[in-house]
Order: sequence, then C-alpha cells, then structure tokens
Amino acid sequence: MPGKVLILMGSANDADTMRGAADVLEKYGIPYEMTVASAHRAPERTRLLAQNAEREGFSVVIAGAGAAAHLAGLVAAESVLPVIGVPLSGSALYGFDALLSTVQMPAGIPVATVAIGKAGAQNAGHLAAQILSVAVPELREKVRAHRKTLADALEEAAKKLS
Amino acid sequence: MPGKVLILMGSANDADTMRGAADVLEKYGIPYEMTVASAHRAPERTRLLAQNAEREGFSVVIAGAGAAAHLAGLVAAESVLPVIGVPLSGSALYGFDALLSTVQMPAGIPVATVAIGKAGAQNAGHLAAQILSVAVPELREKVRAHRKTLADALEEAAKKLS
Amino acid sequence: MPGKVLILMGSANDADTMRGAADVLEKYGIPYEMTVASAHRAPERTRLLAQNAEREGFSVVIAGAGAAAHLAGLVAAESVLPVIGVPLSGSALYGFDALLSTVQMPAGIPVATVAIGKAGAQNAGHLAAQILSVAVPELREKVRAHRKTLADALEEAAKKLS
Amino acid sequence: MPGKVLILMGSANDADTMRGAADVLEKYGIPYEMTVASAHRAPERTRLLAQNAEREGFSVVIAGAGAAAHLAGLVAAESVLPVIGVPLSGSALYGFDALLSTVQMPAGIPVATVAIGKAGAQNAGHLAAQILSVAVPELREKVRAHRKTLADALEEAAKKLS
Amino acid sequence: MPGKVLILMGSANDADTMRGAADVLEKYGIPYEMTVASAHRAPERTRLLAQNAEREGFSVVIAGAGAAAHLAGLVAAESVLPVIGVPLSGSALYGFDALLSTVQMPAGIPVATVAIGKAGAQNAGHLAAQILSVAVPELREKVRAHRKTLADALEEAAKKLS
Amino acid sequence: MPGKVLILMGSANDADTMRGAADVLEKYGIPYEMTVASAHRAPERTRLLAQNAEREGFSVVIAGAGAAAHLAGLVAAESVLPVIGVPLSGSALYGFDALLSTVQMPAGIPVATVAIGKAGAQNAGHLAAQILSVAVPELREKVRAHRKTLADALEEAAKKLS
Amino acid sequence: MPGKVLILMGSANDADTMRGAADVLEKYGIPYEMTVASAHRAPERTRLLAQNAEREGFSVVIAGAGAAAHLAGLVAAESVLPVIGVPLSGSALYGFDALLSTVQMPAGIPVATVAIGKAGAQNAGHLAAQILSVAVPELREKVRAHRKTLADALEEAAKKLS
Amino acid sequence: MPGKVLILMGSANDADTMRGAADVLEKYGIPYEMTVASAHRAPERTRLLAQNAEREGFSVVIAGAGAAAHLAGLVAAESVLPVIGVPLSGSALYGFDALLSTVQMPAGIPVATVAIGKAGAQNAGHLAAQILSVAVPELREKVRAHRKTLADALEEAAKKLS
Repeated sequence: MPGKVLILMGSANDADTMRGAADVLEKYGIPYEMTVASAHRAPERTRLLAQNAEREGFSVVIAGAGAAAHLAGLVAAESVLPVIGVPLSGSALYGFDALLSTVQMPAGIPVATVAIGKAGAQNAGHLAAQILSVAVPELREKVRAHRKTLADALEEAAKKLS
Repeated sequence: MPGKVLILMGSANDADTMRGAADVLEKYGIPYEMTVASAHRAPERTRLLAQNAEREGFSVVIAGAGAAAHLAGLVAAESVLPVIGVPLSGSALYGFDALLSTVQMPAGIPVATVAIGKAGAQNAGHLAAQILSVAVPELREKVRAHRKTLADALEEAAKKLS
Repeated sequence: MPGKVLILMGSANDADTMRGAADVLEKYGIPYEMTVASAHRAPERTRLLAQNAEREGFSVVIAGAGAAAHLAGLVAAESVLPVIGVPLSGSALYGFDALLSTVQMPAGIPVATVAIGKAGAQNAGHLAAQILSVAVPELREKVRAHRKTLADALEEAAKKLS
Repeated sequence: MPGKVLILMGSANDADTMRGAADVLEKYGIPYEMTVASAHRAPERTRLLAQNAEREGFSVVIAGAGAAAHLAGLVAAESVLPVIGVPLSGSALYGFDALLSTVQMPAGIPVATVAIGKAGAQNAGHLAAQILSVAVPELREKVRAHRKTLADALEEAAKKLS
Repeated sequence: MPGKVLILMGSANDADTMRGAADVLEKYGIPYEMTVASAHRAPERTRLLAQNAEREGFSVVIAGAGAAAHLAGLVAAESVLPVIGVPLSGSALYGFDALLSTVQMPAGIPVATVAIGKAGAQNAGHLAAQILSVAVPELREKVRAHRKTLADALEEAAKKLS
Repeated sequence: MPGKVLILMGSANDADTMRGAADVLEKYGIPYEMTVASAHRAPERTRLLAQNAEREGFSVVIAGAGAAAHLAGLVAAESVLPVIGVPLSGSALYGFDALLSTVQMPAGIPVATVAIGKAGAQNAGHLAAQILSVAVPELREKVRAHRKTLADALEEAAKKLS
Repeated sequence: MPGKVLILMGSANDADTMRGAADVLEKYGIPYEMTVASAHRAPERTRLLAQNAEREGFSVVIAGAGAAAHLAGLVAAESVLPVIGVPLSGSALYGFDALLSTVQMPAGIPVATVAIGKAGAQNAGHLAAQILSVAVPELREKVRAHRKTLADALEEAAKKLS
Repeated sequence: MPGKVLILMGSANDADTMRGAADVLEKYGIPYEMTVASAHRAPERTRLLAQNAEREGFSVVIAGAGAAAHLAGLVAAESVLPVIGVPLSGSALYGFDALLSTVQMPAGIPVATVAIGKAGAQNAGHLAAQILSVAVPELREKVRAHRKTLADALEEAAKKLS
C-alpha cells in the first residue's frame, strides 16, 4: 500500500494551521509525519527531507509556507513525489505573496497549490487522500463518505437556518 | 493499472494551450481524452463528464478555464478523483481572475492548482504523471528521467551562453 | 404577481451578512426564502434548488459566497432567472477573490454582481426589488420612496454635523 | 409589455464593445436605444437621460464606461430602473479601475455589474432579457433557447476537437 | 480675497477622518464649511452643492468618499472649481477601490487626488491652502512656516531617538 | 497675474505624453516651461528647479514620472507651490507603481495626483488652469467654456452614433 | 576597516520596527547610528545626511519608510554608498505602496530592497553585514555562524514539534 | 581585491535582459561570469554554483528569474555572499509574481531586490559595484563618475527638449 504523507512547514508558528492537514489525514487513516523545514533557514535539512522522502516510503509531500514561500518549490525540485503547496498568510501581504510564490512554478516542476491558510491546509489533506486513492481504492470510498458528510452538514445547517 | 486522464477545457479556443498537457501525457505514455466542457454554458454535459469520469476509468481530471474559472471547482465537487486546475489568461485581467477562482476552494473540495497559462498546462500533465506514479512505479522513473532532461538541457544552455 | 426571491448563501456563517438582503426584501414586502447551498460541498442540492427555482415561483435568485465563489455562477448556469451575486469577504484576500470569481462570467451567462460584503447584501435586496418592479409598478414607487428616505437621512446627518 | 432598454456608453470609442449588448438585445427582439453619455464630460445630458428613462418607457439601463467609471453609478442614483454596469478596459489598468468603480456601490443604490469588456457587454444584453422576463414570460423561453444554443455549440466544438 | 473651502464627505461616518482637513484649514485661518453629500444617496443635494459652490464664494472643494467613490468626480463634473478628492478606506478593499474611483478621471475633468485616509484628509487641507496661495501670498508664507514646523518636529524626534 | 506653470518630466521619453499638459495650457493661454528633471538621476538639478520655481514666477508645478515616481514628491518637498503629479506607465507594472508612489504622500506634503498616462497629463493642464483661476477669474470662464466644448462634442458623437 | 552603518527611518513611529536592523548589527559588532529623516518633511536634513554619510565614515545606509516611501530613493540619489530600502506597512495599503515606491527605481540608481516590515528590517541588518563582509572577511564568518544558528533553531523546533 | 560577480539567470531566454547587468559590470571593469541556473529544473547545479561561489572568488551574486522566482532565494540560502535578485517579467502576471517571490524573504536570509526587468538588471550591476566599492575605493569613484554621466545626459536631454 502506498505510503505515508510528509507534512512540512516553514516555521513552528505555522503548526496550528498545518495541523489542519494532519487532522484530515488522521480521519482518513493515512499515516503521516509532520516536521519543520525551511527553504532558506535550513536548506540542507529541507533538501535531505525532500530527497529522502521517496526512499523512506512517503508518497506525497505537503508543504506550507508564507511570504516568499519557496518551500514547496524546493521540495518539488528535489523529489519526484507529488508536492502539495499551502500558501500561508503570515506576511504583510496576507498570503498573496505566498500564493504567487507557490503556484507560478515553471514548466516541468509542478506544485499542486491549494487555498491560502486554514482551508488550504485542510484541503492539502483531502487532496493527498485523493492522490493516494489512485492506488488505494478504499480511500476513494472514504473521500466519497466525507463528501456525503459535508452535504449532510449543509442540509442540517439549512434546516437550522429556516 | 490506473487509468486515463481526462482533459477538459472551457472553450475550444483554449485547445492550443491545453494541448500542452496532452503532449506531456503522451510523452509519459499515459492515455488521455481531451474535450470541451463549460461550467456555465454546458453545465449538464460537464457534470456528467465529471460524474462518469471515475466509472469510465479515468484516474485524474485536468481542467483549464479562464475568467471566472469555475470548471475545475465544478468537476472537483462532482467527482472524488484528484482534479488539477489550470487558470487561463483569456480575460482582461490576464488570468489573475482565473487563478483566484481556481485556487481559493473551500475546505473539503480541493483543486490542485498550477501556474497560469502554458507553463501551467504542461505542469498539469507532469502533475498527473506524478499522481499516477503513486500506483505505477515506472511512471516515477519517467518523471525522474524527464527531470534529468531538464537539467541536461539547462547545462547545454549554459554551455551555449558561455 | 411575480414571485418570491430565493436567497442562497454558501455557509451558515454567512447568515449575518446575507440577512441584510432579507431585511431589505421584507421592507419592500417581497416574499423570500433563505437557505444554505454550496456549489462545492452540496452541488446536487444547489443544482436542484437552482433548477426548481423557476417552477417554485421564484423570480430572482440572490447568491452570496466567499473565496472561490462559484455559487452564483452555478445557479446562473442552471436557471434562466436573473441571478444576483454577492461576493463575501471570509477569506485571506478580503473578498477580492470572491469578487473576481463572481463577476468575470463568460458571455451568455451573466451574474448581476454587487459590492463585497454587507453593502452588497443589502443592495442585492434593492436590486431584486428593482428587477421585480419591471412587472410590479408599485415596487418602483417603493424604491423611489426608499431613495427619498436615504436622501432625507443624509440631510438629517448634514444638519447634525453642522 | 415592459419596454425598451437604454444603452449608454461613456465615449463613442466604446461603441464597438457596447454594440455587443445591442446585438444580443436584437436577437431577443427587445427594443433599445443606444447613445453616448458621460458622467463627467456631459453630466447634465446624462442626468436627464437617467431621469427621463422611466417616463420614456425604458425598463432597464445598460451603462458601459472605463477608468473611473462613474456612469452606471450616476444613472443608478438618478433612476429607480435596474441599471447594469459594464466595466470597460480602456485605461492603463486594463479595466480593473472600472470594475471597482462600478461594482463597489454603497448600500441603497445597486449597480448590477457584469464582466469587464466584450463578455460583459454581451452579458448586459442577456441580463436585461432575464430582468425583462420577470414581466414577459416568452423572454424566459428565449433565454432558455439561447442557453440550448450555447450548450449545442459546445457539443459541436467538442466533436470537432476529437 | 479668494474664498472659503467646501468640505464634503460621503457619510457622517467619515467625519472623524475628514475633520483632519478642517483642522488644517483652521490652522491656516482659511474659512470652510463642512457637510455631508452623497453622489448616490443624495445626488440632487450634491449636484446643487457643487453647482452653487462657486456662486456662494467657495474657491476649492474637498470631497472624501469610500468604496465606489464617485463624490469627487461628480463635484468636479458640476463645478469649475478645483476639486480635491480624498479616497477613504471604509470598504472591504481598504480604500484601494476608492483610490482608483477617485484618481482615474477622464481627460478634461481632473480630480486632485491625495492619499487614502487620514494622511489624505490632512493633505487636502494643505493642498487647498497651496491652491489658495496662488491668490493670497500670505498663505504661501503660512505653508512655508508649516513646513518648518514639520522639519523642526523631525529634528526633535531625531534628538529624542538618539 | 499669477504666473507660469513649470512642467517637469522624469525622462525625455515622457515628452510625448507630457506634451498633453503643455497643449492644454496653451489652449488656456497659460505660459509654461517644460523640461526634464529626475529625482534620482539629477537630484541637484531637480531640487534647484523646485526651489527656484516660486522665485522665477511659477505658480504651479506639474511633474510626470513612471515606476518609483519620486519626482512629484521631491518637488512638493522642496517648494510650497501646488504640485500636480502625473503617474506614467513606462514600467512592467503599467503605471500602478507610479500611481502609488505619487499619491500616497505623508501628512503635510500633498501631491495633487491625476490619472495614469495621457488622460492624466491633459488633466494636469486643466487642473493647473483651475488652480490659477483662483486668482484669475477669466481662466474660470475658459474652463467653463472648455467644459461646454466637451459636452457639445459628446452631443455630436451621440448624433453620429444614432 | 569599512565603517559604520547609517540607519534612517521616515518617522519616530518606525523606531520599533527599524530597531530590528540595529539589533542585528549589534550582534555582528557593526557600529551604526540611527536617526529620523524624511524625504518629504525634512528634505534638507535628509539630503545632508545622505551627502555626508560617505565622508563621515558610513559604508552602508539602511532607509525604512512607508506609504509613498521615497526615503531610500532620495538617499540613493544623493550618495554612492549602497542603500538598503525597507518598505514599512503603516498605510492603508499594508506596505504594498511602500514596496513599489522603494523597489521600482530607474536604471542607474539602485535601492537594495528587502521584505516589508519586521522581517525586512532585520534583513537590512544581515544584508549590511554581507555587504561589509566584502571587505571584512571575519564578518563573513559571523554571517555563516548566524546561518548555523538559524538551522539549529529550526532543528530544535522540529524536535519539539514531534 | 574583492573579486568577481556571478550572474545567474533562470533560463537562456533571460539572457537579453540579464546582459544589462553584465554590460554595466564591464563598464566598471568588474570581472564576472554569467551562466544559466534554475532553482527548479537544475537544483543541484544551482546549489553547487551557490555553495562554490565564495571559494571560487566571487564576491557578489546576481540572480534574475521570473514567475515563482526562487533562484535568488535559493542562492541566498546556500551562500553567505550578498545576493541581488532581479525579478523578470516573463509570466502572465508581468513580473509581479517574480517581485513578491524575490523580495519577501524571511528574517535571516535577505535578497537585495531591484526593479522588475531591464532597469532592474542594469541596477543589479550598479548595486554590485557599490557593494564592491566597500572594499575597492576606486569603484566608488567610478560610481560617482557614472552618476555624473546620468546627470549630464539629462541636462543634454533638457537642452534638446527646449
């Protein structure tokens, strides 16, 4: 069975937001490891994490960073695993800089970019599950079940509103 | 073996750009189908394409659209397959509107967004290959080989420059 | 007499803002129903609401959503009723993403977009009244009366200021 | 039967774009008049056009303008008719200024804003038809028929592509 | 001697900010009147204020407004007096919409636009003084004196810092 | 009679655009001098031009510059004359950088900012005339006459269109 | 040995942020002086500071300012020393205006621009150290040591997280 | 004497623009090497270039890249030399993405960012000269001489204009 998900974040301050990805993976029963890595302050550590991810049994990498968010791009350049980038909103520009730094990758080295901040962190978890479901059919059913949960919750909210 | 990739585009005018995704998939030997679909002008067709994609053996969907680019989001809402969104730059705002419409998805329904325009279309192909490689190890080798090609081409360009 | 207005919002969290539309409709004596719908988390429910709106006697739909705000566009694609879109400011980008996602619709499927947030929600109510006044002349008088109220309130404010 | 549509544009240079609205109205068989008006260069003319529109049998006003596009807002302030605003892209900022100037109206005086440029001009025509259909049921059928045309054209394009 | 300055604001909520302009004028000994006016909610009142300003002895108009800030543009269109526009930051877009709506006027009808918010309101007062100084030489000396005050205050601040 | 207008531009490449200001002044019969000055490449020359402007009989300064457009701000800091800033669109960011660099001046030192590019250059001329009219009543009549010209031209354009 | 660093800030309100630069320089043992200067409110003082900096033994100038941030540009124009610009976020536009005003300098007069706000202020200190290290090899070692500190701190944070 | 400058660019397509930096260095008589490197397509090559730069006698690195421009940041993370970043405008967003990706670096790892495109490339050369002048006094004189050239050219242009 395809393996674990590696969750990286640019700073320990991002842990609250990025735990959103971890929580989602836990609900899917997908194993993960979560650690801090920085393209700029710890490039060697980050490169080794990226280069070793495949060998250590990871199948997907999630990378969350803010400002000039190079983390996802660096990992994408150093690994052939699919990399999901979460732009975070820590800077003066409210994540807008992180979004452009993450998504505008050159031809050949994609980063699968999701929304800025909390919604994006959670969606990184869901997207990882969908990617893994390519090899693990039961995950597809779990995604389907989660979708039903969302639709049901919305019906419930609609009832309360009226 | 996990299956084909479905490439959707919002208008036949986008074919030139989106063929960039198809060309990349061909190089990887990944089967694909490419067609036109519009979240707004042909919602039923698009919904059916999205809902049937899984059953028809597709494993990944690529959706390219411009302006208020809802195509990838609509497909993501109607399918549990991983959906890659390519923001296109047909409008007055040069793809900036398409980028935000594609990437800022709410929690629960991710779109794996890539760069605006040509680079993004090609990267949608590469990302699809990386996603499929979760189940098909030889694809991972092909991605690795392509990376080597890129690095070699750059060395070549460096030689020419000097 | 042309009928009711259907107010949709992407999440129950938007109720405070969207009630601004409902309050305005009440002052005009225009019947309405207000419920939650999501283009992404409950696409079938939303589609059915949109497709049935005409048959159930609705004449106008108001749809408020944030981030990649596809709700108004989805309803516009599934109904021939005039659809008013209210971009909401829940995301990191302060409603700017919702504005572009709502207004930049392709040729053929318009969304009548109003301002971001509270002012927009209230204006959705006023615009609905103006649209209905095409068939109900007394509504036009009510709009006129409301305009007088605004001008009078401003005169009053001017007096207080001096 | 509810009446004509008044199409205003800020400059004769906008005629090419705004004729998109007129062409759509013609296909629907909706009578219209089209003229030039400017909130800044001809404020009295514009105010009179706005104030008289109702009395002269217009039911909807379409106003297209660029840069600090105040035309739609001025007409909306001077008339209780529904006003559709088309932001045009003549300035250095590619219509972005016109979009914000048109859509961000204060509570009480809405402008139904559509997309920047050509798509917006055409959509102003479609939206006017949808608004008029509140009183003229056969227009609703024409909108439905046009939607079918769009969907069929897309099917056709899809066939050609494959 | 050239006359008074008319300070207009789009809403009584803007009084705190716009009083910055009044305070500056008071320091220069320039007479002014300050009132509320709205291009959209009270267009007739606003037009009359603009059209009568010259006759009533005003020499400069200052107009502060937020969102789709048409106030300065409307006054500029209805009066030949120099009009200073202050973009205010009340909307979701932090005054960015007000800035573009105020500054991007078409050829022929300028608005002298100053900075967003408080700094802009104060500068409207200073700019009015500079404009009036064209006819009133002693005002030029007062502006010069104020500049000295600024420079001295900065020297003082520099001393405190070290 | 209050005096001449000094037109400065950051580079000889801006002459085509800035001549729009000169042409307008000529139509008003207002004397002017036009020269090149650069806040960055010729700061001393620019400072002397600014400091001497008053003494040499200038009453208003117009300054057009692109990119990090500091020209108008530098002149405003070195002279008590009213300074009109024209943001020019020579850089990659289409004048958006020049707009913010020109308009966002700190409290105490205003720049009367007009629109980006050609419309702004012409409006700098009109605004200068309006400023000078504070002291020269006949200029006010000329501005009024020009306004009539604009309105008449628009009526003419309206006739041609219909 | 190459000399001191001159830290300038546009207002005493910026001292908290700009002290970040001073603190970094202190850690490197680099002498500095810090004072207030304003391109607009105290141009002569600022020019003299800039023109004298070289002669007084400064080797690098750091200039932090917000809004229409001309301070770094003015200093760069008046001195041949390398000038580092720190865009500050005091205005309505969150430092975006300061960023463009600082970085978009014309050919010939560069400003070495760093990030908006606190991170930028600290990086101005680090960049100054790197620049001085061109002449002072031991500074290079100190920068290397600081990098190690950053990487170690990140390893520590990673341990705590797991 | 401090050494050479290393000019890196993300793609051979950027050579035309980046040669602007080389030309400036040549005029200063500063030795340089120019080559292609990519943070994403050739990360190892780029890392080695960055890590070896110091040892190979380079004193400053210039890095120009577009889109998600990570090149300067990667080099800054791998070297203690001062790194100058030139944002290039090859993408749909006209260099705006490259600017934010280059300048918004986290505390500890600065990139000295210059203007987007051609002006920035030339300024990278000038800034490198200013940095090197910390150790090489005669370079300071050359910068001063260049400044004189700029001012003289502007005087010349002023003469031609009048």
